[in-house]
Amino acid sequence: MRNLARVILIALFTVACVVLAQSQQKIDLIIGGGTIVTMDASRAIIKDGGIAVLGDSIVAVGPLKDIEQHYTSAQMIDARGRLVLPGFINGHTHVPMTLFRGLHDDVTLNDWLYKYIFPAEAKNVNEEFVRWGTRLAAAEQIRSGVTTFADMYYFEDAVAEESKAAGMRAVLGETFIDFPAPDNKSEAEMLSYTEKFLKRWQGDPLIEAAPAPHSIYTCSKKTLQDAAALARRYHAPILIHVAEMKKEWDDSEKEHAMSPVAYLNSIGVLGPDVIAAHCIFVDAADQKLLAEKDVGCVHNPSSNMMLASGVSPVADLRSAGVAVGLGTDGPAGSNNDLDLMEEIDLAAKLAKITKMNPLALNAKAVVEMATIDGARAIHMEKEIGSLEAGKKADLVLISLDEPNAVPMYDAYAQIAYSLKASDVETVIIGGRVVMRDHKLLTIDEPAVLEKARDYGESVEKSLGMK
Amino acid sequence: MRNLARVILIALFTVACVVLAQSQQKIDLIIGGGTIVTMDASRAIIKDGGIAVLGDSIVAVGPLKDIEQHYTSAQMIDARGRLVLPGFINGHTHVPMTLFRGLHDDVTLNDWLYKYIFPAEAKNVNEEFVRWGTRLAAAEQIRSGVTTFADMYYFEDAVAEESKAAGMRAVLGETFIDFPAPDNKSEAEMLSYTEKFLKRWQGDPLIEAAPAPHSIYTCSKKTLQDAAALARRYHAPILIHVAEMKKEWDDSEKEHAMSPVAYLNSIGVLGPDVIAAHCIFVDAADQKLLAEKDVGCVHNPSSNMMLASGVSPVADLRSAGVAVGLGTDGPAGSNNDLDLMEEIDLAAKLAKITKMNPLALNAKAVVEMATIDGARAIHMEKEIGSLEAGKKADLVLISLDEPNAVPMYDAYAQIAYSLKASDVETVIIGGRVVMRDHKLLTIDEPAVLEKARDYGESVEKSLGMK
Repeated sequence: MRNLARVILIALFTVACVVLAQSQQKIDLIIGGGTIVTMDASRAIIKDGGIAVLGDSIVAVGPLKDIEQHYTSAQMIDARGRLVLPGFINGHTHVPMTLFRGLHDDVTLNDWLYKYIFPAEAKNVNEEFVRWGTRLAAAEQIRSGVTTFADMYYFEDAVAEESKAAGMRAVLGETFIDFPAPDNKSEAEMLSYTEKFLKRWQGDPLIEAAPAPHSIYTCSKKTLQDAAALARRYHAPILIHVAEMKKEWDDSEKEHAMSPVAYLNSIGVLGPDVIAAHCIFVDAADQKLLAEKDVGCVHNPSSNMMLASGVSPVADLRSAGVAVGLGTDGPAGSNNDLDLMEEIDLAAKLAKITKMNPLALNAKAVVEMATIDGARAIHMEKEIGSLEAGKKADLVLISLDEPNAVPMYDAYAQIAYSLKASDVETVIIGGRVVMRDHKLLTIDEPAVLEKARDYGESVEKSLGMK
Repeated sequence: MRNLARVILIALFTVACVVLAQSQQKIDLIIGGGTIVTMDASRAIIKDGGIAVLGDSIVAVGPLKDIEQHYTSAQMIDARGRLVLPGFINGHTHVPMTLFRGLHDDVTLNDWLYKYIFPAEAKNVNEEFVRWGTRLAAAEQIRSGVTTFADMYYFEDAVAEESKAAGMRAVLGETFIDFPAPDNKSEAEMLSYTEKFLKRWQGDPLIEAAPAPHSIYTCSKKTLQDAAALARRYHAPILIHVAEMKKEWDDSEKEHAMSPVAYLNSIGVLGPDVIAAHCIFVDAADQKLLAEKDVGCVHNPSSNMMLASGVSPVADLRSAGVAVGLGTDGPAGSNNDLDLMEEIDLAAKLAKITKMNPLALNAKAVVEMATIDGARAIHMEKEIGSLEAGKKADLVLISLDEPNAVPMYDAYAQIAYSLKASDVETVIIGGRVVMRDHKLLTIDEPAVLEKARDYGESVEKSLGMK
């Protein structure tokens, strides 16, 4: 009898185990044990949390014990003692310009453009240059926890290929500008190149192609409208610099008797597909219009300070209901790096000093701008920007094992004011680990660094600096 | 005959070698092969340079081949592919406050002080707290290339012991304040403690002890004058917050019919031994006075932004002939880190946006503020701040092997705008290697991190946050 009881018990236990195992879904990756800063609607922070990843998406986020009860995976990433966040979103940059980093700083924007950068671009920028610049930028961005970026440059098809190869998510804008560009020499060429570019990348899981009419001061009404029409034909976003400079506002008032934002609206460009970089010179009416039209704005504090452009009224834009993200702008002349964590810190501090009010923009707000609001600003909030079931598995693990990381009283304050790009340890984009324990897995970093140094030499030679 | 000639030749060669060897001075350390940014009077940058170190001092700086001809050393540090700079000088901080990092941010200074920090200090700060906070700060500062710092806090004798143990150079100010402090409860106690403190550290190769009357709004005229008199009796510097807040200016005008700077001058405090933190509210007359009296000023851009204090007219102060250094201020409430490289970047960008002029303060100027001008600001320019024969061997090697470091067109621009604390690879203070290839050699870093986390928990408990 006792033996029978034992046999029955063992059988029951085995059945229970089988049932449990069968109820556990096999997935591709579990990230477990960290403090998860979800950035979901409730801004939940989960201690000892777990994230279940299947394919390129998150299937569940919760306490690790719940995740382990329901899911099983051969691949585990130990996040104990770390912060786990949605990957940062760099909403505005010009990545191939990494190769011009620090070429000529501390000059006026006009001198920088016409004396230095336009000649340097004319002499050096070709598709190969763009490829290497993009690889370098991918390395730098992944190292600072950026998983998605929005770019505007030339040869954007090559930027797309290299970004995809590096495993990064990107919204890539091919530039429309009313003078011959390094790639396309006329508006007709720009339209033809961009249409091909849009077609090629439709449905790609990582790359979103887009037209990028440069600005109202470098594009005619026709160019702006043609670029917008093309975007809308392919359901692509439109990337544009908006109200970055005082002169842009003054000229717009003179020529159109309207602000830059009102002018863009009057010609039918504004809409829920526009990603507007800078938005510095925007008055209350502009802010209302941007909100109504569901335009995304991208704030670039380093660039705006470095070029002395002005300060975007970020807190007012947020109050008006505008989605405001963060960007590094280009890594030449206006930053000079692609470190989005510095922009998080700076956005808060710049708002405080500008308003002479330490409550102007807080740590949580600027972390929102780098994640969920950044996603809203580039119109991808359904896919990225927070850690929740159904979204892409774009996330970063940040180490808390450096002197600047301890003690930690508040996760948002730590992210905004104390943690650095160098604390970013592991980066996952669309379920793929692109950096693990500070080691880049998708980029041949030594080759990229060597090539960047070579380009430095050849740029100097081309400009007679050597 | 041929054999004889050969013997003679060999003999001559041997004699030549012996003569050469004898003419080579034996020293303790050669740092060789890097690009040396000397910050000497001519601002020489030496490619493939060498630095000869004997004891705690530099005996020669020049092209490596010259250094190798005249000096020989068993210890060599290979600096090829790196920048070699004078160690950075953090001219104003409160190091033990690392343990309060991020405790309560995004509030007004008044709320922060009276609701959060003063109660937290009253409940937590003792000598042991100060020791661990200083150790943590030393780790963080060395990691960001700081070799000298100027501090103001309580139990400063313990700060001195821990700073010395970490191998750091420091000017340490014991606080005078007109209310009971965590260490001394009355002015009499402050005077007695500080005199003992000054006596103890006289002649120390690394530590300079000083009195630190907090400010004109927390110290009576008597306290200010007593602290200054004590400093002058021991030829010590005087550390003080000056003109940090608008209210301080307004109150001074009301009470003394003078600006804070003019008031300090009128009571005999200003002099060539004063290190004045902040100097935000200083008009043209104040600037002239600060220059005439040879007062050193320390600019703290992060803190001034975070607390919305205002912006110091750094370019004007420099034009007036005032030595202006850089500081992080305390790592709690006002920064929240001890990363001086961020202050370098920010000083330039903040000046540009404030003046709406991208030429307001350039990369070279802000690197000067972190090195030679920082040394002038703390009145140590004869000992530190540049790499030249006769000065202390305080220097940092910065790696150029990260994506943010390439290409490099201009060393000053790279240091100011692109390189990060995490690129600091090796740090030498007074000839002693305190960090080698990112590994701290004078601090038990894991123990310090663990203790900092423990303090975080106990501070939270003491304030009923848990």
